[in-house]
This record gives sequence, C-alpha cells and structure tokens, in this order.
Amino acid sequence: MSTNFISAPPRAGERPEGISPRVRAIVAEMSLDEKLAQIVGFWEGEEGDSVAPLQGELASTGKLDDAMAHGLGHLTRVYGTNPVDPDERAAYLWKRQRSLVTDTRPGIPALVHEECLTGLAAWKAATFPTPLAWGAAFDHALVERMGSLIGGSMHALGIHQGLAPVLDVIRDVRWGRVEECIAEDPYLVGTVGTSYVRGLQSEGVDATLKHFVGYSASRAGRNFAPVHAGRRELQDALLIPFEMAVLDGGVHSIMHSYAEIDGLPVAADPELLTTKLRDEWGFTGVVVADYFGVAFLHLLHGVAADLGDAAAQALAAGVDIELPTGDAYLAPLKAALESGVADIAHVDRAAERALAQKERLGLLDATFEEDPPTGVDLDSPAHREVARELAEKSVVLVSNDGALPLDATDERQVVGVIGPNADTFAALFGCYSFANHVLSQRPGVELGFEAPSVLEGIREEFAGTVLAAQGCGIDDDDRSGFDEAVTIALEADTAIVVVGDEAGLFGRGTVGEGCDRDDLELPGVQRDLVEAILDTGTPVVLVMLTGRPYAVSWAIERCAAVVQAFFPGEEGSGAIARVLSGRVNPSGRLPVTLPRSVGAQPYSYLHPKLGGDGEVTNLSTGPAACFGHGLSYTTFAHESLETSDAPTDGEIVAAVTVTNTGDRHGEDVVQLYAHDVVGSITRPVAQLVGYHRVALGPGESARVEFTVPTTRLAFSDRSFTRVVEPGAIELWTGTSEERFAEASLTLVGDAHPVTTASARWTTTRVV
Amino acid sequence: MSTNFISAPPRAGERPEGISPRVRAIVAEMSLDEKLAQIVGFWEGEEGDSVAPLQGELASTGKLDDAMAHGLGHLTRVYGTNPVDPDERAAYLWKRQRSLVTDTRPGIPALVHEECLTGLAAWKAATFPTPLAWGAAFDHALVERMGSLIGGSMHALGIHQGLAPVLDVIRDVRWGRVEECIAEDPYLVGTVGTSYVRGLQSEGVDATLKHFVGYSASRAGRNFAPVHAGRRELQDALLIPFEMAVLDGGVHSIMHSYAEIDGLPVAADPELLTTKLRDEWGFTGVVVADYFGVAFLHLLHGVAADLGDAAAQALAAGVDIELPTGDAYLAPLKAALESGVADIAHVDRAAERALAQKERLGLLDATFEEDPPTGVDLDSPAHREVARELAEKSVVLVSNDGALPLDATDERQVVGVIGPNADTFAALFGCYSFANHVLSQRPGVELGFEAPSVLEGIREEFAGTVLAAQGCGIDDDDRSGFDEAVTIALEADTAIVVVGDEAGLFGRGTVGEGCDRDDLELPGVQRDLVEAILDTGTPVVLVMLTGRPYAVSWAIERCAAVVQAFFPGEEGSGAIARVLSGRVNPSGRLPVTLPRSVGAQPYSYLHPKLGGDGEVTNLSTGPAACFGHGLSYTTFAHESLETSDAPTDGEIVAAVTVTNTGDRHGEDVVQLYAHDVVGSITRPVAQLVGYHRVALGPGESARVEFTVPTTRLAFSDRSFTRVVEPGAIELWTGTSEERFAEASLTLVGDAHPVTTASARWTTTRVV
Repeated sequence: MSTNFISAPPRAGERPEGISPRVRAIVAEMSLDEKLAQIVGFWEGEEGDSVAPLQGELASTGKLDDAMAHGLGHLTRVYGTNPVDPDERAAYLWKRQRSLVTDTRPGIPALVHEECLTGLAAWKAATFPTPLAWGAAFDHALVERMGSLIGGSMHALGIHQGLAPVLDVIRDVRWGRVEECIAEDPYLVGTVGTSYVRGLQSEGVDATLKHFVGYSASRAGRNFAPVHAGRRELQDALLIPFEMAVLDGGVHSIMHSYAEIDGLPVAADPELLTTKLRDEWGFTGVVVADYFGVAFLHLLHGVAADLGDAAAQALAAGVDIELPTGDAYLAPLKAALESGVADIAHVDRAAERALAQKERLGLLDATFEEDPPTGVDLDSPAHREVARELAEKSVVLVSNDGALPLDATDERQVVGVIGPNADTFAALFGCYSFANHVLSQRPGVELGFEAPSVLEGIREEFAGTVLAAQGCGIDDDDRSGFDEAVTIALEADTAIVVVGDEAGLFGRGTVGEGCDRDDLELPGVQRDLVEAILDTGTPVVLVMLTGRPYAVSWAIERCAAVVQAFFPGEEGSGAIARVLSGRVNPSGRLPVTLPRSVGAQPYSYLHPKLGGDGEVTNLSTGPAACFGHGLSYTTFAHESLETSDAPTDGEIVAAVTVTNTGDRHGEDVVQLYAHDVVGSITRPVAQLVGYHRVALGPGESARVEFTVPTTRLAFSDRSFTRVVEPGAIELWTGTSEERFAEASLTLVGDAHPVTTASARWTTTRVV
Repeated sequence: MSTNFISAPPRAGERPEGISPRVRAIVAEMSLDEKLAQIVGFWEGEEGDSVAPLQGELASTGKLDDAMAHGLGHLTRVYGTNPVDPDERAAYLWKRQRSLVTDTRPGIPALVHEECLTGLAAWKAATFPTPLAWGAAFDHALVERMGSLIGGSMHALGIHQGLAPVLDVIRDVRWGRVEECIAEDPYLVGTVGTSYVRGLQSEGVDATLKHFVGYSASRAGRNFAPVHAGRRELQDALLIPFEMAVLDGGVHSIMHSYAEIDGLPVAADPELLTTKLRDEWGFTGVVVADYFGVAFLHLLHGVAADLGDAAAQALAAGVDIELPTGDAYLAPLKAALESGVADIAHVDRAAERALAQKERLGLLDATFEEDPPTGVDLDSPAHREVARELAEKSVVLVSNDGALPLDATDERQVVGVIGPNADTFAALFGCYSFANHVLSQRPGVELGFEAPSVLEGIREEFAGTVLAAQGCGIDDDDRSGFDEAVTIALEADTAIVVVGDEAGLFGRGTVGEGCDRDDLELPGVQRDLVEAILDTGTPVVLVMLTGRPYAVSWAIERCAAVVQAFFPGEEGSGAIARVLSGRVNPSGRLPVTLPRSVGAQPYSYLHPKLGGDGEVTNLSTGPAACFGHGLSYTTFAHESLETSDAPTDGEIVAAVTVTNTGDRHGEDVVQLYAHDVVGSITRPVAQLVGYHRVALGPGESARVEFTVPTTRLAFSDRSFTRVVEPGAIELWTGTSEERFAEASLTLVGDAHPVTTASARWTTTRVV
C-alpha cells in the first residue's frame, strides 16, 4: 500500500536545536538540489567490492563530478575502500575538497567519514584488538587512549567522522556481528564505549554510535532478522549504552539500526530517532543512515511503497543523512516532495543539522588551499604500545590445571604450535579491520604493517624448540593435516593448539557481518583436531582467537589450559606468547558468557531467576564459563565487603579488601555485582554495577571502594517509569555467578524516578 | 522490597459484570473466611505425586474436612490424580458435595475441575489424539465433536470445569509443552481451539483457555523462562486465539500464564487480565490461577515480598480463583487484608465471580441428594469413532518416493517393525493424558481401555510376515539392540521404523511439561538406529510419533517415506497402519514447521521477509518441511484462483478449483494464504487466512470458495491501533511456501480500525 506513514512535520517556525543563524541563512539560500546534496554521501567504490549488504545492487552512484555538481554532504570511505597509499589519497582528497569549495555554488567541502572500529580502516594503519577484547580488558581509560590515537590518525588525514563504536549489547552469540560488540552487559558496553567516543572526539573527529538500536537482538541471531523485544528490554538493556554515550560522552553522531523492533523498522521510528534521542536525551548531533538502510525500508522491510516513500519516512523519523549514497534522498525524495508524500520542512531540518556539524568541524570556513598531509605515521610506537597493553589485558585464562605458565627459558622444552589460527595474521583482526574488510578481497596486497602470527610470537618468546603444523583449515572438512599435527604433538612437551574464527563479510568468514552461525561448535573440523591432539596424551593448551564465544565445555574439561583471546590486534601474538610464558600474568575477564550450547541461545547473564536453572525445566543454562570469569597465575582473596543502607536517590558506597594471596604480581579486575531481591518487575539474578582493575604484588592488599549511583539499579516499572525502588539489595564482588565477598543493604525512601540527567558511572578508588 | 504494586481498587459502588442480586446477597452475607474459601481449591493429592511444578514444596494442604469448614471453591482433580474407579470416586464425590451442602453454613457445593486436554484425564477414559494432531487434521468440526464427547463424560461424573484447551501459539519448538499446543498459526489455533470450547461447553462443562498469555514464547524454549515479546507480537499473534475463543466461543474460564512478559508476570498484570480480557473483549467468566501461579509471584518471579503480597497483586490484577489450593489466598491474603496490602473489594469481586459461575452451573441449588452416577462409559463406541477419524485425518505424509502405500494384502511381504515407539501404548498419548500424566508413576496399574501399539496395528492390518525389534530406547545411549534391528531389516522387504518421543512431566519424558530440549535431533540414539537401518539398503518408512517437530532433513533425504503422526491417541495405531497400507489416504498437513536445526530456533513461518533467507545473512532458515505441507497418495491440482478487490472493512471472496488428478480417492486440505505487500508495519511473508477440507474421487473437481473477513489481515499499526490497511494483497492456495494457484487484489478505502466485535472466521463452501 502507499499510504504515507510519516509523522507530523515540524510545527511552523520550529527549527532544529542549536542551529546557528549562519547555518540557517546558508540553508535558506540553497536550492532543493543543493539541500539534498548536503544530506547524502558519495562512494567511489570499485566494481566487485562487497563490504555492505546488497552493495552490488545499490552502489552504482555514477561519477563523482556529477554527484558534486550541487555540493556534497559526505565522502564515503575515501581511504577505506581500497588499498591506497595514504599520501596519494590525501592529495586526491584535498583536490576534491578544493573543487567543492571553488567549483560549487555553496562552496562547502564534504564531510569525510570512515570506518574505524579497531583502528582507522585504511591501508597501513594500526589495527587494535577487537571490541570484545576491550570488554575483556575491563579498562575504559585504556580504550579512551586508543580512541584518541585513532582519532589523531583520522584527523591528520582529513577524516571528520568515524563510524564507531558499536554499542549493541550482546544478546545472542550466533549473530556474526557479536565480534564488533563490547560485551553482554550494558554498563560495561556503556563505559568502554563512551570512553572510545571521548578518545576519538578529543582529536576533533566525530564518533558515531552504532547501531541505534536493537540490532543485536535479532531473531535466532540472524543478521537483519526481526527483533522481538518489549519496551523494557529496550529501555533497561539495549538503550543504556547509547544513553551513556550521548549524555556522558557527548557523541556527535548516531547511526540507525537496520533492525525492526516488534514490527517497526528503527529507520522509520520517530519515537526512537527523535523523541528518545533528541527530546529526552537532548542529542543535538546528526543521525546517519546505516548503509542503504533508507532504501531497505522499501526493499527489505516492505514498509514503504517505493524509495521516495522510504526517504520521506526516514527523514521524518529523524534520519538526517543517507549513506553511503543518495539512493533515496536524491531523485526519489525529490519526486516524493513534488507529490506531497515528503515534507520540505524535514529536508531543511536535516540540511541544517548537516551544516551545523560542518560548521562545528570548521568545514564552513575550510578552503583546502593548504598542502595535503604527507608522511602521517598511522602505526606509530604510541599506537603499538596501546595495542600491546590492550591485547595483554584482554587475554582471558579460562581454565588452567597448572600447565601454564610454560617456562619459556627452558631450551630443552619442545612446544608444538598447531591449528589453523596459529600462523596467520588474519586471526588477529576483526571483520571491520582493513585487513579482513578489504585486503582479504585483494590477494597479493601486503598488510603494510607488522602483525606477527601467534606462531611467530611464540618463536620469539620461547627459547626451546617450536614445532608447527596447521592441522586443518578454519571452516572446511579436510582432515588431511591431522596426522602431521598429531605427530608434532607426540614430539612436543606441550601442544599449543590455536583455533578459532576468521572474520569476514557476508559468508566470507566464520564471524563478522553476515557470518552468523546456527551452531556454536568451533567451525569446521577444529574440535576434531583438538580432540585428536588431546588423544595423544600430550598436554594441550587451547588458545582461541575468535569473534564470538563458542560452546567449549568439552575443551575446558579435557585441556590442560584454555585461553580465550578474541581477536587481539597487531600486537596480539606477543601478548598471547607472554601470557603463555608468564611474563604477562593474564588479567582479562569474560565480557560475554561462554555458552553451554547453541540450543540455549538466546542467553544473557542478566536473566531473572526463571531464565536460569530450576525445577520447572529439565534443562540447565549453566554456561561453560560465566560473564566476568577469568583466572590469573596468582590468586586474589576478597574480604570484608562493607556497605550501608542508602537512599533511593543517592549512592551506594561499598568497599572490599583485595589481597594477592599468591606468589607473583598480578592484576585483578574487581567486579561489583548487585541483585535487587524484590522488584515490581522481575530483576536479573546478577547485574554488574562497577569494576576496578588493581595491580598487586605478592601479599599486597588494597581496599577498593565503589561509589555506585543508585540509578545503576533503576528499571522501567509497571508504568514504564524508570525508577529506583526501595528494598533489599544483595551486593557481592566476584563474577556474575561466584560471590567472593558478600554484603547487603536496603535502599530506603520512596521509589525514585530517574531522569536522564542523573549520573550513571560508578566511581572507584583505592582507599 | 515490600511496596504494594496493586492497581487501584474498584471504584465505590462498582461491581463485577453480570452478577445476579442473588449472588450479591450471598456474598454480602459471607464471613471473610467463607469468601476466601470460595476462591481457592483443595487437592487431595497423594504423597510422591509430581504433576505440577514445585508440587512437593507447596501442595501440603492438610485435611479436606478442615479445608471445607467454611465451604470450598474448587475440588481439584478428584478423578485425575490417582487411578480410581470412576464409580467409587463418583460416590465419594457426591458424599463430599452433600457434606458441603449440609455441613457448612453457606451450603454451596464445590466446583469440580479436571484436566481434559486429550480427553478426560481419568482412569479408563478415552484418550484422543494430541492437540498437534487436531491442528494437523485441519478439521475444526471434528474437534468440536471430540469436545462434546469429552464434555459429556465429565458432566456425567459431576465435573464442572475442564482445564483445556491450550491456545498458546507455538513460537519455539524446543519448549516441552509444544505437544499441548495446536499449531504455530494463530488462526488455526483459534478456530480449532474455539471448536473444542464449543464442544465441551455444549455439554454443560466450562472450558478453560490456557495459558493466557505468552507462555509459548519463553526464552530459548525453556519452561517458565521470561518472554521477550513486544506489544504487537502479543496483540497480533499470541492473543488472537484467546480473543477468538472468548468472542466466538463464549468460553467461561481462562487460566493465567506462568510467564512474565518483558518483565511483568501475567498473574500480576491488570492490563491483560482485566483491561484486555474484560473491558475490551467483554469476558464475564472466571480467571483461574495456573497451579501455584499466585505463590510463584513471590517464590519464582520475585515481584511480591511474600505470599500475602502475591495474593493481593494477583487478586487485584484479576486472578479470581487460586488453584490448586489456597497457598496465598487463605492465611497470607487474610494477613494482607489486615495490614492493608490487599483490598477486600477485590475479594468480593472474585467471590462474586466464583459464585456467579456456580449459579450458572446450577450449583447454588444442587443438593446432591440424588444417587451418584454409575457405569458411565468413558470410552464408548462414539468416543472411539471420533478418536479414529481424528487420528486418520491427522497423519501427515511428509515425503514418499513411492514406497507407500504398502500392499497389506500381500501374504509374501515381510515388513520389519522397528524402533522404540513401535510397541508401546505410551507413544500414542500426550503428557496430559492420564496414561502419561499419572499412570506412568503407577507401575503395574493397567491402562483400562484398548490402545493397541503401532506394531499391533500393523499386525492386524498386514497379511504378510511382520518382524519386530525395539532397536533402542527413547532417550538413552544403549545401542545393544541395533544388531537385532539390523538383522530384521535385512530380512524385511520394508523396514517401518517407529521413533519419537515419550511424553512425560518434569524431566520424565522427552517432551511435555518441564521436558524441554536444547537440541532437535531425535532423542537418544534413535537417529543412529534409523541410519543403521538405512545402511542395510532395505527401504525405510520412518514413522514419527512425537510431541514436537524434530530436525529431520536427513531422514527426508534418505528414507523411502517419512510419516509424522504426533501422538495419535487410542485409535492411532490403526490409523497409522491404514495409512501405511493405503486403506486411509493420508490428508494431514503440518500444523508446525519441521525445523532446519535447533540453531534456527525460535522460528515461525509468520516471519517478515528479513526473518527468512536473504543476502544479509549467510544462514538459511529453509525448514525441512513447511507449515501446511502434507502429501497424499493421489495428487491435487489447484487452478483458477479468482478474487477481486475488496473494501478494507469488508470481505475478500476467493474461489479455487481443486481437482483430484490422481487415481484414488483422497482428501485435500485447501489452504488459503495471504501476503500484504506493503504495510506500515512489517508483514509476514505468508499468513493462513482460511482452510477447507474437501474429499474428491479420482478426476473429480470442486470449486472451493472462501469468504475472508478483511479483519484476518488486521494488525497493530504504528500507533498500536488494530487496522486493515488499504493496498495490494497477494493470495494463493497451497502451503505456506508453495503457491499452487495465485491471485492478487487490492484492499480499497481508508485504513479500517478493527474492533473486537468484528467477525474473525473465514467461511468456506463448495460452490
């Protein structure tokens, strides 16, 4: 049907928030073509690329010169689409920008955006650990440093906006894009993600929150599948990190999610894109489309009769900029304006927001007369240092029977390094790294920076003999390499078996965008390989470089040690080798549950009592390893957790003494959890309310104090008002399932309505 | 916390709908104890029983004489808890009822309720096919006949209310209670379920809709797990069958669901139990608790501080009667009334509803002075005839390479009947049958009526040699019987392998209440058994007697034929044998998708485009066999589907010519599907809007006409108003995935708001 579903246009005289008189005047003078040009992007992709869904069908955008005739809103992925030399590309870009200034009537340069999830997605640029590793590190300050390094590189190359971070809260690990996510806990996602935003924006580059909202809760973990979620799940779990990054991070841009939620695609939902985001949270930045997301309202969701209808709906809902190109916001929108389906007031609103962003970024006054940058070091020692530290802190020791650490100084020791992820740099990087996003489709092009494989890292670290065999591929059924692997394992004192994912796009990997799974076994015959090695009797240290957690109870049971590394980035192999040797004492904690089985999905540790085990179902959810779990080569004792009653509109102060009770230096991630015993709405059995990383020598103690705003315990009550309710609260330090130290308190007073102005971060200190 | 979450009490002077002056007067005269007595049940369970969740902890209700001191609302499962002779039990019941009349001040007998999902759940009573088989039969008139037979038996024994049917729409087949459900399509559930209600209530027995609402959408298919569903999913899918049974079936009672939906347990939700049910739909009957469901607000959901708080919340929300016993509505509620947590007005409201029901049932005037009934035939020829017809119509021929039908008259033919469900009557019945609900815990007690096994049915039907072997158990890993099974298969011309589920409660079966699965392989080593038989080269006819669909693509690929029978009831073995021999031409259609894999759950055929296959995920949802699929030994052609444009507030008339193009008599289930091409909300790729069963001889044709109220296509729009929108509609006959005949039309006019008064059934006729 062709009914026009758009919401009411802005009231007469109403203008977007925070628009300067200068911007208003510019837009007032613009022709329709000039306005439309400002709210779309242009993408000089090459034929045969496929880095966005349905790109082949949609991204034929003609020539840039034609596209630039009336000016241009965004230049899409100037550096990130092909392996181009940064210097050459910068020169090209400056020329293009100069031409926009001199050859178009408005004379306004384009805003240049780029992917930058794990580092600037450009050739030769540093590639950091994957977001799951940021989550595992439980160190938001370090992620902020990473963000500022990424932002610095981007700023130097004339890039104004980065399409990161991803703040989707993990809900179903079958989804391929889990590897772009930080964690399954909204607070961890929110603090780490907000830190990324602060870092990136500190260098003058706008961050973009992705994907607002709900994408991660797609049905059965299938990319783009409908989201079956209620209003509370949205408000109390999925929206939290976005709210934190808007209010506490001051983020300048947000990308809508492809998802439909309970039948309504977000790109057409003014309640989310305008009421929630702008009216409630006060967001004043720009909402950009996920690539082709406007057209998808017609093509995939079937809620728009044609592209013009799609444009009208998205624009009315609050999608300001169509990316990557103007499939809907150019000719189709123009036709829709003529036929009355679309409203020019919405075009003006979007154009004003687009130009306000350019004004803030200095683009209204930029001339591009200066020389383009040259020799920008995209992988400086500072980049590598942060990449190293983040990798080291992110490695999770899941289990260890004492086999680890290995003595790397023992020259007589023989280690076998086996497995499909042992000797490939691809295993270090996520799907949105330049390596796996672009280079994987450009065979023969070199990576452009140092990224030793795990095998190389181990060879560097270990004095003894290192034997190597691949054993099998990532995701095929070829067992022909098993014999060689078994032979090597038999010769070795320890077999280090390095397994996991290869990140890729649209079926080209085992994880990544469009690489969903309907089982959670290690892909291909990797489990069989590990079991063949186990059968040799040689102790097996299993190292998983993955983009999602897999169901590995069997490995935890049989292997001497299990190490979960996610994708650890360019310095990841050294980090892993040093964890194996003990030079680095592992301190990562699981940011996502290691699941029991695919049949137990969807799963979140934030479930109410009845989402767990019990007498009413025969099944156990009991995960292989719980959220927050992670071992060390030393041991930590938690004692004397003390707290006291607090008002519902106040703060909970709790302190615990943490002692390194082992014989080596180590870092503990002290996690504080809460459980609201009785609520008007069912409450999760455990909820992370704070975390603090502390380094302690043998025998050392520290008293760690948490000041938790009660708002951390707020939820949408029976009337959907967000409140903190009075009553008993259980507190503990430990993991989501293990209570190392316990205390309880009562929140006193009336139910306290929580506004978005409330502080949301827990502060921590050593007292 | 202990805040009182209950909604506002009734306004002063407000009284429940449809309460007679007589009932008002009775309640007005009652003491508090007498009122409370009327809104609870009493259950004389025996120790060691376990037929309800947490029964061991909760159902210690003391002595009946004590419980009856102030009268009694319900007598719980008088016949259904133990194998008691119906005559003896009736005599006991009459004595008890007489005592209530003569020995208590109010003098009001108890309302006697019983389970009756697949027949009265009492010893020696007929057991019909399981609800999935009703769905597969696509014959609501036959289910109405079954309902009236069940109602007749119950009425004869002094039972006033039956706790059936289950109208949960299947959303995730991992859930154990799928076997109590009718289908994954709301219209099929609604029409068949409403027919059951009409049948049961035609005999003066009140039906009870279960479980209002959402229970079937529990997280990961786990019993009692939280439901993550939005308002539209509730309104447009899950609530539809309940609405139909209230408005079109005039049902007298409804049971709340144990579920929480988006954090709020239904038992505490006045929006569902009062606003939706009574204010919007006009329901005037009684809402009963699912067993212990009131106490669970405190014990399992944690939304009530204690049992008194739980009672106050449930009563305020609209749970009138606590079952099975007064765990919360007696002493705890009394204390809550005293402390002001509960409101006496809600007690009065519930008591008045309870007594209005007794008044309608004639209980206010019953004296029980007459002799109790004796010799009631609970398994009469009429019962068996309906059981037979329903079983025959419900068998689904999923695949057939021509191996079926077998020539049963061939005396030289050797068939091997193999498998754990071949020679057991338990395989014929669902979890709520008396056999599997009660007798399975009473070893040595005979079934009490005829229920031949499939093996016995085949021996009866086939003139040749029938060899038999069990091969393996239902759900263990014992392969010791494989050799015998293989030997028999090698001797046979055809191997009939009968596999599937054993229905049971709380882990005592492979399907049923509290018997969820986290994989969808046939339980135990049954697949291995089938594959061992397949490896012999003997053609395999796989017969599945199950309570859920399993992932059997592999079997469809390799077996000569696959037959899906669900649990076919006391006449099921003959029905299966006659399908195998061809005396019955199979005509069942899948009421639920045969899934691709457990990793593709949750799944419903009612998904929008993005819930299916596509370019944006690497995975295929493509089920093993789709909703509506089912073969015959003849073939049917669908031609000349004709329809025309219709007003949004009118009816779609469509007719199709169906021709039996094969050489034997058969029945076709002509299914009419629709797809709304563009909606303001994403629309399912297919939606059943009508069905008609037609019998045709070889070469015969019939023109089947459907008159579909446009309300069948209504959905909750962006403002949550239920509307029929104008626009293009695709229509087809066939299955949910195959279009045998196609047509299209346009709905014209404005978007039409749909009220609950609108007709909802499609009418069909042969023209």
